[in-house]
Amino acid sequence: MSARCSPLVSVLAVPQKIAVVGAGAVGGYYGAQLARLGDEVSFLLRRDLAPVRAHGLRVRQPPAGDFTLWPVRAFGTTAEIGPVDLVVIGLKATANDELRQLLPPLLGGHTTILLLQNGLGGDEFLARQFGAERVLGGLCFVCLNRTGPGEITCTLPGYLALGEFTGAPTPRLRELAARFQAAGVKTIVTENLAEARWLKLVWNVPFNGLAIAAGGVTTDVIMADANLRTAARALMDEIVAAAARLCYAVPPGFIQMQLDHTAMMGPYRPSSLIDWQEGRAVEVEAIWGEPLRRAQAAGIAMPRLAALYAQLRHLNAAPRNMSTNS
Amino acid sequence: MSARCSPLVSVLAVPQKIAVVGAGAVGGYYGAQLARLGDEVSFLLRRDLAPVRAHGLRVRQPPAGDFTLWPVRAFGTTAEIGPVDLVVIGLKATANDELRQLLPPLLGGHTTILLLQNGLGGDEFLARQFGAERVLGGLCFVCLNRTGPGEITCTLPGYLALGEFTGAPTPRLRELAARFQAAGVKTIVTENLAEARWLKLVWNVPFNGLAIAAGGVTTDVIMADANLRTAARALMDEIVAAAARLCYAVPPGFIQMQLDHTAMMGPYRPSSLIDWQEGRAVEVEAIWGEPLRRAQAAGIAMPRLAALYAQLRHLNAAPRNMSTNS
Repeated sequence: MSARCSPLVSVLAVPQKIAVVGAGAVGGYYGAQLARLGDEVSFLLRRDLAPVRAHGLRVRQPPAGDFTLWPVRAFGTTAEIGPVDLVVIGLKATANDELRQLLPPLLGGHTTILLLQNGLGGDEFLARQFGAERVLGGLCFVCLNRTGPGEITCTLPGYLALGEFTGAPTPRLRELAARFQAAGVKTIVTENLAEARWLKLVWNVPFNGLAIAAGGVTTDVIMADANLRTAARALMDEIVAAAARLCYAVPPGFIQMQLDHTAMMGPYRPSSLIDWQEGRAVEVEAIWGEPLRRAQAAGIAMPRLAALYAQLRHLNAAPRNMSTNS
Repeated sequence: MSARCSPLVSVLAVPQKIAVVGAGAVGGYYGAQLARLGDEVSFLLRRDLAPVRAHGLRVRQPPAGDFTLWPVRAFGTTAEIGPVDLVVIGLKATANDELRQLLPPLLGGHTTILLLQNGLGGDEFLARQFGAERVLGGLCFVCLNRTGPGEITCTLPGYLALGEFTGAPTPRLRELAARFQAAGVKTIVTENLAEARWLKLVWNVPFNGLAIAAGGVTTDVIMADANLRTAARALMDEIVAAAARLCYAVPPGFIQMQLDHTAMMGPYRPSSLIDWQEGRAVEVEAIWGEPLRRAQAAGIAMPRLAALYAQLRHLNAAPRNMSTNS
């Protein structure tokens, strides 16, 4: 077969040892896709450990076709997993501190760490803790929800963008992208991870934020309300302007493309809204606080982001179940 | 006594028959002050009817001195009260529809209606329903809370601003102002009620709104958080600019004066926040929606008000007690 002559295919033919840390919707989905391809994927699970051990990991992805990964290498500690080739982190930014304890058992001399996370600051944190050369970043342009114990539903497969923390794409990055691509995940390689993270904020800041700040609304409600849509658009404009001032390249028509995608999403609950509604901490600092601080450090005013950040910071700190006290 | 020669004092010496509709914090406080002066004040009460009949109406107002009005002419229907000289409305704007049924039994040929309410639209509603010539408007620059059954606490007496709905101040308006003044309520007469209502929005829009939108924070928290304070200031600037475009006169230094007063209020819960936290409807249309619509009708963009209005509208419509659904 001519394919055997391709170095890429030969690399892909070698199964990788992979650990998925934080197997919620993101970690579970991408981990299950790699496991289907034949990689040895171990999942660190918390609340879904028992159901996944018993019934496997169910991925619902109409119309691509549902599948169940079973049996699953499911573990409650990273010590049980041991050193791997690749760590895929699907934890929320709010849990990054836990990585200090969770990651060391997984790290061998050449272990790569892929951070699939929204917002800013996580790559730098991993680089400080475990060495910049290990760190890859990924952005998931996707609609994924955990829809039950051990069940993940993908309503918009979208694509994955991968980048090196330290600079331009390397062969290992391109190989990883090819691996995801072979597993059925549309994947692109970004030349500039920091730029890609800023561009992702163009959607996350307004839609994740306003979904919460407007009392728990889905993206279709934001799009249908002229005032909320205008507020979202103004936030997008502000982020694009700040990105440009920070010398990141914003593709022409980027905002409109994001809005068009959003219109197709229907009544989508952004991940931060789900965190909020399920009583978990929202990634307020990663998605709203850190971009604001970086802009301010560069002398760029972002008044709309500042107002939304302040609201979310207080909302996040307030008791989540308000009771009447009349 | 020379005072007997003053027409004003002689007018004040004639007790008025007054009905207070909606004897929450606002109606109860001002009604109790007029009753102390000797007017025959009847209170329409709902949830506090039994405690007020039993124990009276308690007004706490350090350092001016607390007092209890007892016995209180407390009623559950306006039919029991019958026609009066003056109706004082202390209901929230969200309850204005109820006035169609509540007011007719109170109205004689010369009955005046004083609307003590935040926001826009209530004066016009009363004018349409009951005749423009009856309608006076009042704005309460005050910190009042209902602190228990039949108990009202005034933490900042501030002042009352009264205006004619139809135009310039009349003798009846000046007499009413003198009556409040004699009862110990600092009262000013405004030449332009619509203008005064817009100026009151300069405080209510940002502080009532952000207190809710930031998850239930008191005014001191808004003042202490640089981003929330900046957001409040930007809203104030937007309202003052719109007011100027609508040809209302804004006194120099008005915003700074409002901010200075706010700094003195301490941890104040704006009335809308209390409504929100106690599960009642918030006056979203009167305070945020109607000003926005009037500005838009005049071709004035108010993007910050629009964003806050949209948030509050959805927040107000959302279930108030969020439960986890993990």
